[in-house]
Amino acid sequence: MQIQKNEMKIFSGNANRALATKVANYIGSRLADCEIGRFADGEINVKIGETVRGHDTFIIQPTCPPVNDNLMELLIMIDALKRASANSIAVVIPYYGYARQDRKAKGRDPITAKLVANLLTIAGATRVMTVDLHSEQIQGFFDIPLDNLWSFPIFAKTLKESGITKEDYVIVSPDVGGVKRARQIAERLGGPLAILDKRRPKDNIAEILNIIGEVEGKTAIIVDDIVDTARSLVNAAAALKKNGAKRVIACITHPVLSDDAKERIKNSDIEKIYISDSIYHENLPENFEVVSLAPLLGEAIVRVRKNLSVSILFRQ
Amino acid sequence: MQIQKNEMKIFSGNANRALATKVANYIGSRLADCEIGRFADGEINVKIGETVRGHDTFIIQPTCPPVNDNLMELLIMIDALKRASANSIAVVIPYYGYARQDRKAKGRDPITAKLVANLLTIAGATRVMTVDLHSEQIQGFFDIPLDNLWSFPIFAKTLKESGITKEDYVIVSPDVGGVKRARQIAERLGGPLAILDKRRPKDNIAEILNIIGEVEGKTAIIVDDIVDTARSLVNAAAALKKNGAKRVIACITHPVLSDDAKERIKNSDIEKIYISDSIYHENLPENFEVVSLAPLLGEAIVRVRKNLSVSILFRQ
Amino acid sequence: MQIQKNEMKIFSGNANRALATKVANYIGSRLADCEIGRFADGEINVKIGETVRGHDTFIIQPTCPPVNDNLMELLIMIDALKRASANSIAVVIPYYGYARQDRKAKGRDPITAKLVANLLTIAGATRVMTVDLHSEQIQGFFDIPLDNLWSFPIFAKTLKESGITKEDYVIVSPDVGGVKRARQIAERLGGPLAILDKRRPKDNIAEILNIIGEVEGKTAIIVDDIVDTARSLVNAAAALKKNGAKRVIACITHPVLSDDAKERIKNSDIEKIYISDSIYHENLPENFEVVSLAPLLGEAIVRVRKNLSVSILFRQ
Amino acid sequence: MQIQKNEMKIFSGNANRALATKVANYIGSRLADCEIGRFADGEINVKIGETVRGHDTFIIQPTCPPVNDNLMELLIMIDALKRASANSIAVVIPYYGYARQDRKAKGRDPITAKLVANLLTIAGATRVMTVDLHSEQIQGFFDIPLDNLWSFPIFAKTLKESGITKEDYVIVSPDVGGVKRARQIAERLGGPLAILDKRRPKDNIAEILNIIGEVEGKTAIIVDDIVDTARSLVNAAAALKKNGAKRVIACITHPVLSDDAKERIKNSDIEKIYISDSIYHENLPENFEVVSLAPLLGEAIVRVRKNLSVSILFRQ
Amino acid sequence: MQIQKNEMKIFSGNANRALATKVANYIGSRLADCEIGRFADGEINVKIGETVRGHDTFIIQPTCPPVNDNLMELLIMIDALKRASANSIAVVIPYYGYARQDRKAKGRDPITAKLVANLLTIAGATRVMTVDLHSEQIQGFFDIPLDNLWSFPIFAKTLKESGITKEDYVIVSPDVGGVKRARQIAERLGGPLAILDKRRPKDNIAEILNIIGEVEGKTAIIVDDIVDTARSLVNAAAALKKNGAKRVIACITHPVLSDDAKERIKNSDIEKIYISDSIYHENLPENFEVVSLAPLLGEAIVRVRKNLSVSILFRQ
Amino acid sequence: MQIQKNEMKIFSGNANRALATKVANYIGSRLADCEIGRFADGEINVKIGETVRGHDTFIIQPTCPPVNDNLMELLIMIDALKRASANSIAVVIPYYGYARQDRKAKGRDPITAKLVANLLTIAGATRVMTVDLHSEQIQGFFDIPLDNLWSFPIFAKTLKESGITKEDYVIVSPDVGGVKRARQIAERLGGPLAILDKRRPKDNIAEILNIIGEVEGKTAIIVDDIVDTARSLVNAAAALKKNGAKRVIACITHPVLSDDAKERIKNSDIEKIYISDSIYHENLPENFEVVSLAPLLGEAIVRVRKNLSVSILFRQ
Repeated sequence: MQIQKNEMKIFSGNANRALATKVANYIGSRLADCEIGRFADGEINVKIGETVRGHDTFIIQPTCPPVNDNLMELLIMIDALKRASANSIAVVIPYYGYARQDRKAKGRDPITAKLVANLLTIAGATRVMTVDLHSEQIQGFFDIPLDNLWSFPIFAKTLKESGITKEDYVIVSPDVGGVKRARQIAERLGGPLAILDKRRPKDNIAEILNIIGEVEGKTAIIVDDIVDTARSLVNAAAALKKNGAKRVIACITHPVLSDDAKERIKNSDIEKIYISDSIYHENLPENFEVVSLAPLLGEAIVRVRKNLSVSILFRQ
Repeated sequence: MQIQKNEMKIFSGNANRALATKVANYIGSRLADCEIGRFADGEINVKIGETVRGHDTFIIQPTCPPVNDNLMELLIMIDALKRASANSIAVVIPYYGYARQDRKAKGRDPITAKLVANLLTIAGATRVMTVDLHSEQIQGFFDIPLDNLWSFPIFAKTLKESGITKEDYVIVSPDVGGVKRARQIAERLGGPLAILDKRRPKDNIAEILNIIGEVEGKTAIIVDDIVDTARSLVNAAAALKKNGAKRVIACITHPVLSDDAKERIKNSDIEKIYISDSIYHENLPENFEVVSLAPLLGEAIVRVRKNLSVSILFRQ
Repeated sequence: MQIQKNEMKIFSGNANRALATKVANYIGSRLADCEIGRFADGEINVKIGETVRGHDTFIIQPTCPPVNDNLMELLIMIDALKRASANSIAVVIPYYGYARQDRKAKGRDPITAKLVANLLTIAGATRVMTVDLHSEQIQGFFDIPLDNLWSFPIFAKTLKESGITKEDYVIVSPDVGGVKRARQIAERLGGPLAILDKRRPKDNIAEILNIIGEVEGKTAIIVDDIVDTARSLVNAAAALKKNGAKRVIACITHPVLSDDAKERIKNSDIEKIYISDSIYHENLPENFEVVSLAPLLGEAIVRVRKNLSVSILFRQ
Repeated sequence: MQIQKNEMKIFSGNANRALATKVANYIGSRLADCEIGRFADGEINVKIGETVRGHDTFIIQPTCPPVNDNLMELLIMIDALKRASANSIAVVIPYYGYARQDRKAKGRDPITAKLVANLLTIAGATRVMTVDLHSEQIQGFFDIPLDNLWSFPIFAKTLKESGITKEDYVIVSPDVGGVKRARQIAERLGGPLAILDKRRPKDNIAEILNIIGEVEGKTAIIVDDIVDTARSLVNAAAALKKNGAKRVIACITHPVLSDDAKERIKNSDIEKIYISDSIYHENLPENFEVVSLAPLLGEAIVRVRKNLSVSILFRQ
Repeated sequence: MQIQKNEMKIFSGNANRALATKVANYIGSRLADCEIGRFADGEINVKIGETVRGHDTFIIQPTCPPVNDNLMELLIMIDALKRASANSIAVVIPYYGYARQDRKAKGRDPITAKLVANLLTIAGATRVMTVDLHSEQIQGFFDIPLDNLWSFPIFAKTLKESGITKEDYVIVSPDVGGVKRARQIAERLGGPLAILDKRRPKDNIAEILNIIGEVEGKTAIIVDDIVDTARSLVNAAAALKKNGAKRVIACITHPVLSDDAKERIKNSDIEKIYISDSIYHENLPENFEVVSLAPLLGEAIVRVRKNLSVSILFRQ
Repeated sequence: MQIQKNEMKIFSGNANRALATKVANYIGSRLADCEIGRFADGEINVKIGETVRGHDTFIIQPTCPPVNDNLMELLIMIDALKRASANSIAVVIPYYGYARQDRKAKGRDPITAKLVANLLTIAGATRVMTVDLHSEQIQGFFDIPLDNLWSFPIFAKTLKESGITKEDYVIVSPDVGGVKRARQIAERLGGPLAILDKRRPKDNIAEILNIIGEVEGKTAIIVDDIVDTARSLVNAAAALKKNGAKRVIACITHPVLSDDAKERIKNSDIEKIYISDSIYHENLPENFEVVSLAPLLGEAIVRVRKNLSVSILFRQ
């Protein structure tokens, strides 16, 4: 009996079709036929247009804003593929929404990042691939295999090629929570590290930005995983300038860019900001430069599909 | 050791605080302290403002439009209550969104109503209460106890009190899928039944509305569970009129009212439409009349809490 | 290392070996070696006679009467195949027993159809294939892939070939619950629809059979999924005749035929009844005609095994 | 708010209402209102006649022949109680059917005793109580609490009171598999032990019954957990007599008594056989004497309900 | 029927009976009767000496070295309590072993901290209480309620009472990974922060300790969650001294103290080290001072038992 | 796209590398690259040194003393392989520790053998292979496929080849619990059976060893699955000698050999003891002879990998 050969089928939700298309191109494939619309009442309507029976499927869908809609799209696509007898369902989430809600900071907080992990698993995902998780421990929220891809080699390469690292520079973590991430790129580049320590002395006194480490006369490169409203980023840049930094550059993986973040960055002390295309944006101001994750994601998907090592991509 | 007495705490998401408040009033209680906001990027931010450790909690939240946001609010609230050690978490979903996606109508369809059931269960819900499920079989999508409350006694009572049923009337199901529901109220009132059968003879020929049963000279009471865009409802009313119905009345439990449904109904052959407050609306046209579910939900919650029979409420 | 090629192995329980054999023949295969006996005390004794290690297995077993024995046979076979390291275990249940207990019609009812779904899943089934589920929502009782096959193309074809549809005919649903099913075949054939509405006006008054739609002078074709005692079927036929139907034909997928159903139908107004062989019967009266599901099941099994689309079989 | 006090409700399936009634009497309670009938096609129809919301329920149902029907009755009752919001569901299974299929004796055997454990758990049982499990390891098939009650104190007491143990006696295990059980009662009574070792020297030579230990001139008391067809029991008795045993007595917990077991025992060398009422029988021959388990089960249920130790009942 | 009142029973494994006893004393209770021995082959032998049926149980057991033995003791105790029908099983793990293996630092790493979470859950734990988790995200490894207690108020109070904070001091994080923890106590005390950044410039060049922030002339207070071999702690102290720190103090919650850690600290630049009693030690050198967690654990257990808020203990 | 061919990779923990190496040799393969070390605090550190993505993995690790360490090694290896995307993870446990704790012998006992089964399953094992389980029912503790291999053909062959069975011999079970095992080999060899029955008449009177069956003048071959402290084994040998046995031989699968077991056996009445290499020992006394399980395990692994029947290995 001639069995239909197991194929790889790449699906995209509506969150970032541009990136998904680039990934498919990288692989030399195409996006599988799938229409994701809305009914009049806003309920999501998923139509898988080709058979997936016995095939290995990948869904590319960052859970960026509108996060709840993008997440539900993803969950419903998983359900549809599962019921349509896909052999495996890998979800590729370049930006993992709700990642910052990863612990009970206060009593009675939800741990939404874990909730999302449970939702993906119960829906039927059999593997997760993501980039620069806000905290690496989120890997442990899953019991299905998870590949957390690192963007730092891409950004380090971009910084080197830009010539910025030829000057006297310092890598800056904009708060104590991000020190490990900043240090990783600092170590890759071999440069020094500084940290901003925000503190509110008393309740009715304004927050103070304290710089731990040397920035005077240097090019300050702020490194972080997420830029949301950009308020603290812009404040950090101002503080760095005030403390003598020569120039301020930023390298941020995930450009959430809520509210007027674009405008705010455009008018800030930040000379240039490097972001990835994990989240799609149009009409970015001139000081933005986008570094694509498509080759990274494409390569990782191919390696998963071919049963080759993925960790080898990050070996130093 | 003096143990804190197990209390009942009623929470509301943002979907329908008006109804939740009425239910709490009915019970002689108040809504528990809980703030559900949004971060700048649209992620939901749940803050439970009082201890729930060891208490029996109820969350009132219809998953009406915006369905994905309301559903995620509900899931995150459940997660927060679970992690905060609530003794039980009953979710009261007066309108169950995605209920119409309850089967694979075509190959590779998702069964989103089941997905939602799984999401609620994995999040940590320990009981579900809902009203007029689109199909009763959705009960079997759950393995936690589910109380499906019926609104038909309320609507039957309202119709009787309005005097409409004193005239020569017929209960009309607007399509073959809703016959059982229409028949239930027809049996309660002791009246006859008619059915509209939509059919498209060929692909490029307009749909034909066929009336099975007698409507000539009668008051036609269209009964259904959901009114969404109201297009078929308004067409049904027109067809009934065209076939000799004297007046057209509608009784619909869940007023989704997408697009210009309100306007469409206002300008239709429908003299009066009775809806419940499972979904909140303001500024309804004059031919709308709202029948509140608060007493039904309140009574059911009290009975659940007191460990009394709920089914007794629907005994004829 | 030479790995044993993954094969397809088709098993049959005792419920309907005739059908299983036909299916195996259609596929060009044979039934795998498996003996299912009873110990003296009635406990089921399953002996799998050949290795299944790493193979794809299919078990054909309708859960028709004696339903509990047939269901337990199926569950024990699944357990044995699972423990014997089968690669996959698809259960083919042409008739899904307990399907009518698919909701809590009254308080404290079990939902046995869901219980059965849970039992099959926990035993180790990895896929379910069935025909004409009593309610389509039962698909959502499962989280493993389920293929619900439709018999209506077979019956529509049979009716056309019989010449019946050349006359003036009407498709009749014997109760309001079955309207959707009847309408499906009506739409396929392009014919009109009528519905029988049973109602009991008061407790001590006999049930009245109300016909909604036109039957006068027509060939009435009653369409339903299950014929059990045949009491309502025979009453329906009588009512149709009384209301002027010229002839009465019946098309019923699953012939449970409890009590004296065969005799009852033989002596009724039903001129001819078409049934499938989802349930095995011998010595059927002359007005019975059996339409075999073997080609449908065989084709679906082959497509599942070959990883081809199954939904394509029902595309209109 | 006045909460309905959590009560104990005892349900009985159809397998052994006589025993269930005795247990309820022992406790000073009554059987809860529950009707378990059959539809025409043999499907089980469970009607729970009183509210169980929030109550602690016990279902008394041995899974004796017809084992599949009795098991399904039990599973459906559990499902109904679970969906009706019972606080806990303890299943009391005095005789656990399929217990002898507790391991893969040969390749590709099912382990039906484990399957049954999984079925009970997935249906919703929260506790199991049983008597004299065929192998104690079946306890480990469950992850819900299980109380395995021992009947040996009852039988030891009965034997003592009968005067049999005043004579020169020996406890006999009818095969090597039951030695531990026989030894337990031998130790309780302080008497010696003998074992029958059945062996078939070659395939076409009759089985030989070898007696290991001394029986000459003694009253041989055969002890076992189950008597099914009674063939080996009767053969054992004959062999004991042949080897010089003065009298043969039997003590068997679970009287399955398949085929003509009663007749066979009646006409055998067994002077007297003590059995429990875990399985109901009428019209037993004169050499049978029934020892009721009702006080044991009743006491255990009361202790479970009162949160008292059960193990204390078997302390020596 | 008089039901045995639900009581609280506190159990201790062998890991830290001293602490468990103190906690029981704080609560005004006693340790429940439980013997945990070893068989000759090293298998753990748990004997629960009193009934737990229906009671709320707490097991106090840090999973400190020998970590595998202590963890298995805990798991077996949970299994025993579950099977003995405890109403709830809270595991109090003052030191959570394997917490540092909380992510895949490299490809093919296990996430042992998550594995442990899964083992505790499957064994039957219903709640976890712990102190100063190595990463807060470990909370999300569980789906049962987890109370992560903070020791920083105790240590802050101790530091204040010691007079150390009256001098010019700086809180020092010994590496970038611990900045958040150090910052928490710095904020509580209102003091400045410095960070040690270890880096290895090239493979064959010794690691360099870089100090980010000011320490010259100050009392450096190193804050961390775990002290294991104490090598980096002692190096950090030396580096601080070399960079002009006046005195070096350490505050470490969990004293693992492997190898010659005690000796190493005794002979180091560390003037005084404050540790908790989450792990038991005897004969500590003079520069060690133990701060007991018993009041914190005792209070938290009491609040859990009484259904009172625990988060209130950490409100600032 | 060229997919990496699924390979078989054999891993060994630290428990018995000698056996694992022999098994790999038998298969004609090598042990996969994997380092299992300890951190300073005793936590296990697993480093998988080669990709396993998509491969079929086998881990050979008896859970012999130190049982907790060996078990945790195994669990952590499983976790690492699972997260590294192994296609399947078969755990080969030649000696299954904690197997003797397979039931609640007394109230409130744990069932540690089941706990271990649950731990293996939740960690991610997909298949278990083991040898001579202490009780066969442990198979039912698992719901993943388990192959219990029998060593009796190997030992029977060894005994035959040694010439021992040419003399007048008797197979002896050292207690009633092991009769079935002894009988299996007795049946294979066609020899008679005797049983030792230990009993303690009263609490302060020494245990009496009662021999059931004939041993006078015969070579007594004691057969058991486990030899732990060897106390009862040595006592049994003495009792057999005292009762006239000519020689005493022992055949024990699993040599736990705790305390001074080796010395004790060396100085006992046991002329020769045959053990397997399921547990590794060095410097065994002269009366020990090791029979390797490597061919049995190797053959079974190959058959599992090739999807061939394993049960065929034990067909008589």
